[in-house]
Amino acid sequence: MVKQERALRTREALIKSAATVFDRDGFSVASLTAISSLAGVSNGALHFHFASKAGLADSVEEAAAERLDRIVTAHEGAVGNALQLLVNTSHDLARRLTEDVVLRVGFELSRDQVREGGGRLYRQWHQWVEGALKRADCEGVLNEVTPEEVAASVVAATTGFEVLRTQDPEWLSHRTITRFWQLLLPRLAAASVLGDLVAAGSRSR
Amino acid sequence: MVKQERALRTREALIKSAATVFDRDGFSVASLTAISSLAGVSNGALHFHFASKAGLADSVEEAAAERLDRIVTAHEGAVGNALQLLVNTSHDLARRLTEDVVLRVGFELSRDQVREGGGRLYRQWHQWVEGALKRADCEGVLNEVTPEEVAASVVAATTGFEVLRTQDPEWLSHRTITRFWQLLLPRLAAASVLGDLVAAGSRSR
Repeated sequence: MVKQERALRTREALIKSAATVFDRDGFSVASLTAISSLAGVSNGALHFHFASKAGLADSVEEAAAERLDRIVTAHEGAVGNALQLLVNTSHDLARRLTEDVVLRVGFELSRDQVREGGGRLYRQWHQWVEGALKRADCEGVLNEVTPEEVAASVVAATTGFEVLRTQDPEWLSHRTITRFWQLLLPRLAAASVLGDLVAAGSRSR
Repeated sequence: MVKQERALRTREALIKSAATVFDRDGFSVASLTAISSLAGVSNGALHFHFASKAGLADSVEEAAAERLDRIVTAHEGAVGNALQLLVNTSHDLARRLTEDVVLRVGFELSRDQVREGGGRLYRQWHQWVEGALKRADCEGVLNEVTPEEVAASVVAATTGFEVLRTQDPEWLSHRTITRFWQLLLPRLAAASVLGDLVAAGSRSR
């Protein structure tokens, strides 16, 4: 049991090191030696857990998918309506993308067109955003807009904020995301709820 | 003169081949031999024009910057107000990104955080979008929104459409961009001009 736990920790350390080295050097240039050395394990230990660099990349994306899942489920049921849920979750995602290298690099790997089976995290986020907007529609808090069409624009904008962050962290700041919602909410929300919605997120950060 | 012209054509062919091979294989994996062979020239000819693969990437980005400049200036003065100008130009950019591998790969290279001096094309596009919105503000066709704040969200969304296109071309389709403007224009435009604005672009495509 202790042995299994240690193996699990080593695996997690390798995933985090891989994300850090991919982030710094780029996936193609990243060396397995740099990754194992950063994790404080031998090359042999790395190869025990991962068959190849591509396998490590898949595991980083997988770990990021689990984190994304935790982020979107954390808010469910916690707030009044699904539009506020969407706003809160987007703020949370932006903050975690800034803080968590595994989540961030997972998204980067997911948009790498040369890798096979790409786009997984974007599809996961898109599906969740569309679901939240459909729920908002059922709750009667949406203005005369179509959930599917709004979802595409929201996913495009959040993707843009995440991509542009590599140029300047301000793109993923609380202020930028708040301004985005200040722009969009008056168009999205039914007049009856607009006054109650908090573009900056309804929980204290 | 004929010799100079031929040299210029070879250079352009190499830039296009480089973009094509970067697009297919990724920058890090792309080989100079594949690039020169696709351009139909010798490795020696490639090295006559470009010192390295990084130099080729810089030239692809430079060529894309010139194309972007031509796209944004092509519409100036052609339509009634600056909001419609912004809509038309965004449609044109989306179409050209789909068709023109040099423009598309220029943007991809520009967002590669491992390359030095990245982000050039995004800054160029951001600057232009902000300028167009400031002009719309002076023309009195903006609703009560701030040009700078709108510009950030428009740039983020267009960046997202461009990035997500690698997963599915529909993200950069005329339909997707039209829906984005259908969503945003009622929030951006003064009531006096909203009825005249065409989210699908005001020129026949």
